[in-house]
Amino acid sequence: MVTGRFEDIPVVLDAMGGDHAPAAPVEGAVLAAREFGMPIYLVGREDAVQAELARHDHKGLPLTLVPASETIEMDEQPSLAVRRKRDSSIVVGMRLVKEGKARAFVSMGNTGAVMAAALFHLGRIKGVKRPALATIFPTMKGFCLLLDIGANADCKPEYLLQFGLMGSLYARRVLGVESPRVGIVSNGEEEGKGNQLVKDAYKLLRASPLNFVGNVEGKDIPTHLADVVVTDGFTGNVIVKTAEGMAKMMKTFIKEELYRSPISTLGGLLAKGAFDRISKRTDYSEFGGAVLLGVDGVVIIGHGRSNGWAVRSALRVAAQAVAGGVLEGIRQDIAEQMGVEEEAEEALEL
Amino acid sequence: MVTGRFEDIPVVLDAMGGDHAPAAPVEGAVLAAREFGMPIYLVGREDAVQAELARHDHKGLPLTLVPASETIEMDEQPSLAVRRKRDSSIVVGMRLVKEGKARAFVSMGNTGAVMAAALFHLGRIKGVKRPALATIFPTMKGFCLLLDIGANADCKPEYLLQFGLMGSLYARRVLGVESPRVGIVSNGEEEGKGNQLVKDAYKLLRASPLNFVGNVEGKDIPTHLADVVVTDGFTGNVIVKTAEGMAKMMKTFIKEELYRSPISTLGGLLAKGAFDRISKRTDYSEFGGAVLLGVDGVVIIGHGRSNGWAVRSALRVAAQAVAGGVLEGIRQDIAEQMGVEEEAEEALEL
Repeated sequence: MVTGRFEDIPVVLDAMGGDHAPAAPVEGAVLAAREFGMPIYLVGREDAVQAELARHDHKGLPLTLVPASETIEMDEQPSLAVRRKRDSSIVVGMRLVKEGKARAFVSMGNTGAVMAAALFHLGRIKGVKRPALATIFPTMKGFCLLLDIGANADCKPEYLLQFGLMGSLYARRVLGVESPRVGIVSNGEEEGKGNQLVKDAYKLLRASPLNFVGNVEGKDIPTHLADVVVTDGFTGNVIVKTAEGMAKMMKTFIKEELYRSPISTLGGLLAKGAFDRISKRTDYSEFGGAVLLGVDGVVIIGHGRSNGWAVRSALRVAAQAVAGGVLEGIRQDIAEQMGVEEEAEEALEL
Repeated sequence: MVTGRFEDIPVVLDAMGGDHAPAAPVEGAVLAAREFGMPIYLVGREDAVQAELARHDHKGLPLTLVPASETIEMDEQPSLAVRRKRDSSIVVGMRLVKEGKARAFVSMGNTGAVMAAALFHLGRIKGVKRPALATIFPTMKGFCLLLDIGANADCKPEYLLQFGLMGSLYARRVLGVESPRVGIVSNGEEEGKGNQLVKDAYKLLRASPLNFVGNVEGKDIPTHLADVVVTDGFTGNVIVKTAEGMAKMMKTFIKEELYRSPISTLGGLLAKGAFDRISKRTDYSEFGGAVLLGVDGVVIIGHGRSNGWAVRSALRVAAQAVAGGVLEGIRQDIAEQMGVEEEAEEALEL
């Protein structure tokens, strides 16, 4: 895992993104700049961001306010909003990355709008067919990387192969997993299980240089059968949301049942430390959001509900991705894959 | 919900199906016959079933042993096994239903083999394009019905419409939900979200007479936004397995964290009653397995890990489905839907 301070890695933060903006982004920026030292461009409405900054001691921290008069709301239609709101924090921030003034972009805002802006202003890395949104997923043994969780509702087998390549690269360079085991989500463990997409992608993944471990069932994701779990954006979204809903339901059940008798209420009080640790182990705010892999820039999208701590974690992840050389790595791996494909095609033609 | 005794509803039980067969099936049969009064045909290897029966007081209970010399194992290739093992408990049992000697079939065995045998020996209800496997899914407010959870990895929009019709009928007739809210699993709440399959099925469901509430995200299933949740068999399987894995992970985390300090261990002991109640609320064995809707017979498939209590619940569900007139209802609803389609086609032709 890449650690340390990141004084030479300027990062853009969308100060207007998320349910608690600009308070949470500004707090997160202060925390991250202090802890990791990266220069941060806070992009947003000048007065609002200024007012939040005044609530923190940020003397000497490398924070720069970049004014943007517009805000893209959480429920706006992404591509339309990105085209119309040229002076929004998302568009202005993305341009700073495009122009080379910053090396990564972080937002807790409208996921679709960030993806649309990234595609439009940064573009895809050459050879990448579709960018994918990858997230850290808590498991019994730590966490795995799950992708795509929503960038592409309909996928082709080739996309899933590339998701495997990009995810594996990210796990190696940023998460510090040496030879990441890559699995594909399916409705059964055995080879041959799956819908048509999975069956076809399985063959491509098996033939690739990846450390491919085959099919992974929904129940195998939390048990950590694979370090990188590949799926289409529809299924990935359903997995993440189902897991979120189940964790919430279990927590609700615990509360309801503990309060049902005085003895179990007492037990719950004594065990409070344990419950707090469980919450932390399943808490998205520790993991710093999702990363959009395949666009020509480091782009991190956090949960809309993010608090300051979650924003700080997302900024750390952004700097780690830059320091880990994720873009260069993907560029190289995809070029190699394309080379292999060309060779295969030429071989067929001969 | 259909309740009471079911003396006039004979049910077939695959005595050789599941990880704990024949012990668990035989125990479940004794429990169910005593509690609900339904006559039960225990199909399996005579000596093995006889030996298990000898361990229970089953005097006066309406249990009949039907010999079947072969057993289809959990990992056998379904269609092949069903074709080859003509004297297996699954095939012999299914024939008893086909011949009208029993009105429902229950197994904890190889899901694929039961589905294949049902399709082969009972066939589909006229007009049903694809049968679907429906399961009870625990929610914060009780449970909902989720289908398809694995019968069809690749679906067409028309299948999902029929899953909605069959699921809604089952919820009304067996689960006692008056006007079941039907939702479709998607990667966003808003209309227009989804992969191509979901977008197309959405239109069909909205135009149907169902109480359609639109898209349901993974997190909305446990919060019970819909009583009947429709999806393709691939996604449904991933949802059920992810939920299973998450519940297991949460339970593991609770244990690990409680034992980390003497105080929280004490707390855990005091709260044991609460944890037991949580387990019960998320325990599949209360819910009696999945029902295969759309074949011309009542077929219930339980979890391979089922204990005697889970088998008893599955037998109850089978009798409830018969008493609730599920087959007649589906026959009628599908015929009506076909009528509507014909009318629409005729209208187009004019």
